Amino acid sequence: MAAFLAIDWGTTNRRGYVVDGGAVQREHEDGLGILEVAASGIGFETALAELKATLGFDGLVLMAGMVGSNRGWVEAPYVRCPAALDDLAANLVWIEPRRVAIVPGLSHLDPPLADVMRGEEVQILGAVGDGSLPPRALVCHPGTHNKWIEVEDGRIAAFRTVMTGELFNLLRRHSILSDQLDGEAAPGAAFRAGVDHGLAHADLTAELFQVRARRLLGQATSDDDASYVSGLLIGNDLKVGLGRQRHDHVHVVGRPELTRLFAAALGQAGRATTEIDGDDAFVAGLSRLAETCR
Amino acid sequence: MAAFLAIDWGTTNRRGYVVDGGAVQREHEDGLGILEVAASGIGFETALAELKATLGFDGLVLMAGMVGSNRGWVEAPYVRCPAALDDLAANLVWIEPRRVAIVPGLSHLDPPLADVMRGEEVQILGAVGDGSLPPRALVCHPGTHNKWIEVEDGRIAAFRTVMTGELFNLLRRHSILSDQLDGEAAPGAAFRAGVDHGLAHADLTAELFQVRARRLLGQATSDDDASYVSGLLIGNDLKVGLGRQRHDHVHVVGRPELTRLFAAALGQAGRATTEIDGDDAFVAGLSRLAETCR
Repeated sequence: MAAFLAIDWGTTNRRGYVVDGGAVQREHEDGLGILEVAASGIGFETALAELKATLGFDGLVLMAGMVGSNRGWVEAPYVRCPAALDDLAANLVWIEPRRVAIVPGLSHLDPPLADVMRGEEVQILGAVGDGSLPPRALVCHPGTHNKWIEVEDGRIAAFRTVMTGELFNLLRRHSILSDQLDGEAAPGAAFRAGVDHGLAHADLTAELFQVRARRLLGQATSDDDASYVSGLLIGNDLKVGLGRQRHDHVHVVGRPELTRLFAAALGQAGRATTEIDGDDAFVAGLSRLAETCR
Repeated sequence: MAAFLAIDWGTTNRRGYVVDGGAVQREHEDGLGILEVAASGIGFETALAELKATLGFDGLVLMAGMVGSNRGWVEAPYVRCPAALDDLAANLVWIEPRRVAIVPGLSHLDPPLADVMRGEEVQILGAVGDGSLPPRALVCHPGTHNKWIEVEDGRIAAFRTVMTGELFNLLRRHSILSDQLDGEAAPGAAFRAGVDHGLAHADLTAELFQVRARRLLGQATSDDDASYVSGLLIGNDLKVGLGRQRHDHVHVVGRPELTRLFAAALGQAGRATTEIDGDDAFVAGLSRLAETCR
């Protein structure tokens, strides 16, 4: 199989991988997410040409993520669940015939529930494709918008999004808690206490203020508020995501610094976990799609 | 009783009232909250002098709110609950003897619960003082940080803070939902649907993303997302605040544009409500404190 360029093109950054024979030969990450492309006015065509030049690559390009959203280069309509890799392949949006394509995102409609994803589907179905994820699994994909994904018969059958990562960032950057949340979240005692509270209680919006009040009143025993709040939000997230799910094993796919936090919290919730590197799964997914383009 | 100047000095703005014989004679509001005083470098003494000049007033000044916090003019330590007006009077912090004082805030400690308020205590105890609030009541005080306050024997016995207003503002200003939340929240059908969901479900952080996904998938039947999200957050807030409380009547104290939203939601939760104007209650509270200063 000839080399191709896989691009995970998101809102605030992008990562390109030159893949040959299923292995990454070169990669490059920069801040040219879709918002920056729009703000800088350089246009997607130029932005792609620059990335290809940086990586010294010319050939098939497959892109996934927000580049296919209504704020991206060309909108690639959502494919409705249940969906497998073949469904993504059948709905590629070609910008340049047989040269440059955008992979569609997925939608899940189960009224009144409605949900969407862009980018995670490549990782999940890639992990199914390379065998790291079984054909029936409950998957947690942490990120700005955490996804809980039900895989059945090797297809993405249903999913639900929780705004955990975005809320953590909003609290850290813009809230009255900003001063207290400047550390990095790590899975120690403060994190575990947060997870315990989030799993046991439905008072997230009140408990957040406790973080400030305890400090003002000298009641805080930990200076690790970022870890506590991260644990609190993740515990709350797990309660939503695990819900009525009976899986005793959860596969956590994504960036290792996030999957380790969710895996730790899932352990507290009594679940066995397997962590899967999202970059590897992304490359695996696009490699299978690239095969269908030859 | 001689005239005095009552100031509600908050984080982002301040309101001054010249009160004579229990009635407001003149008032002035501006953006010189404690953050702006610090940013502008003019200092609190000058900021107060300017307000007195604007209002043509010279005499006793009583101030409440964030001006007494650790980021304010002089820190007025929290008085621990249960607390009545007399406890506030006994703990005034005098900046200029018998001329200029800051009213302390309240703390509530019931480990592991810890909580604080600054400013609301004057309104609540003022409303008790003028008879608009009974000596035993459950009070909801909406604002950036909504307070649920238990009044017993005419004293503030306990309270709990929910970050509802701040979360709504964070979502409106900085989140992926910003574009959809630019309207004003009003207690119509979309608001009621949000309240219903917030009261019935514990999946706030997932339901927020639904607001975006339904729009992307053409499932949204309302263009009033600000009202829906406001209702969702308030419904969630009520679930926390009402908790195990058995009160079938709730007094809602604060700014009328907020009390009407909370009163509408409390009606959906089967509670009778009475709305009390927070400005009136503030002036009533400081008037009683002023009497103790003669």
